[in-house]
Amino acid sequence: MDAKLIVDEVRLTPILISDPPLLNVQGVHQPYTPRLVVEVITRGGVSGLGETYGDGVYLDLARPLAEALPGRAVTDVNDLFALAEATDPGPRSGSGSGSGDEGASEAGVDAGGLRGVRTADKLRLSVVSAFETACLDALGKTLGLPVHALLGGKVRDSVEYSAYLFYRWAAHPAGGPVDDWGAALDPAGIVAQARRFDRAHGFRSFKLKGGVFPPEQEMAAIRALAEEFPGRPLRLDPNGAWSVETSLSVARELKDVLEYLEDPASGTDAMAEVAAGTEVPLATNMCVTTVQEIPEAFAKGAVRIVLCDHHYWGGLGRTRELAALCRTYGVGLSMHSNTHLGISLAAMTQVAATLPELHHACDTHYPWQTEDIVTTRPVFRDGRLTVSDAPGLGVDLDRDALAALHRRWLDDDGTLRDRDDAAAMHAANPEWRPRRW
Amino acid sequence: MDAKLIVDEVRLTPILISDPPLLNVQGVHQPYTPRLVVEVITRGGVSGLGETYGDGVYLDLARPLAEALPGRAVTDVNDLFALAEATDPGPRSGSGSGSGDEGASEAGVDAGGLRGVRTADKLRLSVVSAFETACLDALGKTLGLPVHALLGGKVRDSVEYSAYLFYRWAAHPAGGPVDDWGAALDPAGIVAQARRFDRAHGFRSFKLKGGVFPPEQEMAAIRALAEEFPGRPLRLDPNGAWSVETSLSVARELKDVLEYLEDPASGTDAMAEVAAGTEVPLATNMCVTTVQEIPEAFAKGAVRIVLCDHHYWGGLGRTRELAALCRTYGVGLSMHSNTHLGISLAAMTQVAATLPELHHACDTHYPWQTEDIVTTRPVFRDGRLTVSDAPGLGVDLDRDALAALHRRWLDDDGTLRDRDDAAAMHAANPEWRPRRW
Ligand SMILES: [Mg+2]
Ligand SMILES: [Mg+2]
Repeated sequence: MDAKLIVDEVRLTPILISDPPLLNVQGVHQPYTPRLVVEVITRGGVSGLGETYGDGVYLDLARPLAEALPGRAVTDVNDLFALAEATDPGPRSGSGSGSGDEGASEAGVDAGGLRGVRTADKLRLSVVSAFETACLDALGKTLGLPVHALLGGKVRDSVEYSAYLFYRWAAHPAGGPVDDWGAALDPAGIVAQARRFDRAHGFRSFKLKGGVFPPEQEMAAIRALAEEFPGRPLRLDPNGAWSVETSLSVARELKDVLEYLEDPASGTDAMAEVAAGTEVPLATNMCVTTVQEIPEAFAKGAVRIVLCDHHYWGGLGRTRELAALCRTYGVGLSMHSNTHLGISLAAMTQVAATLPELHHACDTHYPWQTEDIVTTRPVFRDGRLTVSDAPGLGVDLDRDALAALHRRWLDDDGTLRDRDDAAAMHAANPEWRPRRW
Repeated sequence: MDAKLIVDEVRLTPILISDPPLLNVQGVHQPYTPRLVVEVITRGGVSGLGETYGDGVYLDLARPLAEALPGRAVTDVNDLFALAEATDPGPRSGSGSGSGDEGASEAGVDAGGLRGVRTADKLRLSVVSAFETACLDALGKTLGLPVHALLGGKVRDSVEYSAYLFYRWAAHPAGGPVDDWGAALDPAGIVAQARRFDRAHGFRSFKLKGGVFPPEQEMAAIRALAEEFPGRPLRLDPNGAWSVETSLSVARELKDVLEYLEDPASGTDAMAEVAAGTEVPLATNMCVTTVQEIPEAFAKGAVRIVLCDHHYWGGLGRTRELAALCRTYGVGLSMHSNTHLGISLAAMTQVAATLPELHHACDTHYPWQTEDIVTTRPVFRDGRLTVSDAPGLGVDLDRDALAALHRRWLDDDGTLRDRDDAAAMHAANPEWRPRRW
């Protein structure tokens, strides 16, 4: 193997990025949320970039993997899974972050992405995803090829994204970053938010994060959106907060305006029951988040659309494998997003460009993020991002920005290094409990 | 895109290669069998190689695809499927080869690989496979990377192959190429053949192509192999020639010596019935040959091992997707082979090297082939081929050999340009009919 492609060093930089007070079933986004930036530097002096969750449990897995990588080739991405397993320090060991909880949270979902029960496998896949992306970025930069070309080539020149609407407060109760969006706590607020997204970025489709208010209020918001934007694709995602009965009743009420209903109920059986009772397609990033969950969910007809997410599935190659699985079983494909920055957005766009079966606009939190660690913010036009043909992911690291956000992480006393939407909510309202309808 | 990676020209060279009189359920191999060599030449002057079936129906699809490729990048392999569909001239049109039969043959299987009912989709995938392989070879040669590195990197340094034992005649009845193997028509003949394979190539596992003689005789051959090579993995493949009852009785008799039983019965339902009645794992390259067949076969538990084949599945990338499907559903993976030369063998070895879940030795007809179009014949050691780290597939074209085999194709009056094992058998024995037990 050409020495240029051998890993010389891996740098891990945990950061805290500002995040607005967006509401969801688990609470509210904290003022700052952790992300991890992975840099894979080759002997050729090329730096490849990856980005993933930055909570302590992820750092605990990323550190030994980072130590094991030097001397290996950036082309060897198939082997990363075995390597991550071999270097996994095991449950709780080495975790000084106070977030060694490997079990389900009280709501049966974890705060790191509402992706079902947290398992060692899922954590490892999310860590590998950043290493794989960084390796592909380094490989592409070295060869002068965009990442999409390393994945078999793009099948489209731009990727469509969806506006991600949130109920939100105007400001974090205990202080923190402030923006000019104001509160959105009713249909009028959601429509105003959607209008601004439409104006600023040209998004065609809208997704509302639900599970915050009683279903009637959230249905009213969807109705208001349908009136304001007739014919535009609309999605509602209460993150499994509803019973089967509630889910079916919402589906009945909104069937003429919904593109799909995302995770109305929790668990494969409940989703299957809802699916059997409605024509509205059900989508998920909760009951199908790993390949292990696919056979049962597909056999039971629990979902018609799976939201891929390269952070969940173990990288861009595994995302393409998920697409093949969905194609084989006649299941549609969309894309999930959690709070992320420009490296992840570039990776999402590159892999999305290679998937012929991606027929829904991708989710992205990106427009909510005011800070970034890439030198140039990508610009949405008509709700789309142009697929970069520049080498690698096509993004460059802003080292000053990275250093500043890492400084924030260093300065934190530990309370923000592990995302916990419920804790943030409890701080504002000690009486708050996750609701189910 | 770098001009070096743009396709300048595609050369298609149909050839006829000598083949021994190997027997199977459909008849006997003809003295010469058609293959197609695909060369994708870039503007950088690099030539990438692919190999696939060479019958007229494949050529009819390959020609318009070859014309459409120049100007496109060799990295754009995802798009080949849509391009092949767009350039497909449609059923029977443009076929001057006398082999426009798109339906099933009398045995319900086609002669071009015993892969179930022949469909336009399957033909197209086999054609695309050679173009994809050629593009990857050209890309690897241009970048200085082995094909396995373009597929995420090898996870093993050598790939194990299995000896492929055949009942056979000493010579073709109507003349043709002669070899020194002699006839093998009984257990002693099969054991002698296995001994020679063992000595010459060090193969550890043995597969017997069955469906030729009554099951008792074939079981006796397996028993004789088990005695001669105790503990070595043995496989028997009658290509679906047996009833469920016969299959179950063979499985019962041989359960202590078989690694797996390959396609004992025909069709997913029959295979599922057999599978339900035996502990012996069932493998297939007949009831699962396309992704469309997977959901039913997996749901019914019809097979525990799928034999991948990059010619069937549409190339090396799609073979990796098949592996992901099998991994997801807990189905094992092995590899199928039809008559092939060194380009295909190199491609098989490169993709096999990247599949962690390939836990069975791969099939290959290669040791039966006395002619080749690559400059250096690969050498099996201990039944294994070293995975080449040379750029691309790691093989070079012997242009004199290619020209000679193409000359044979040109000189043929049309009778051999379409492989037809049944016709060859009928010529020797007009009374012959495919048997079922
Ligand atoms: Mg969701
Ligand atoms: Mg077979």
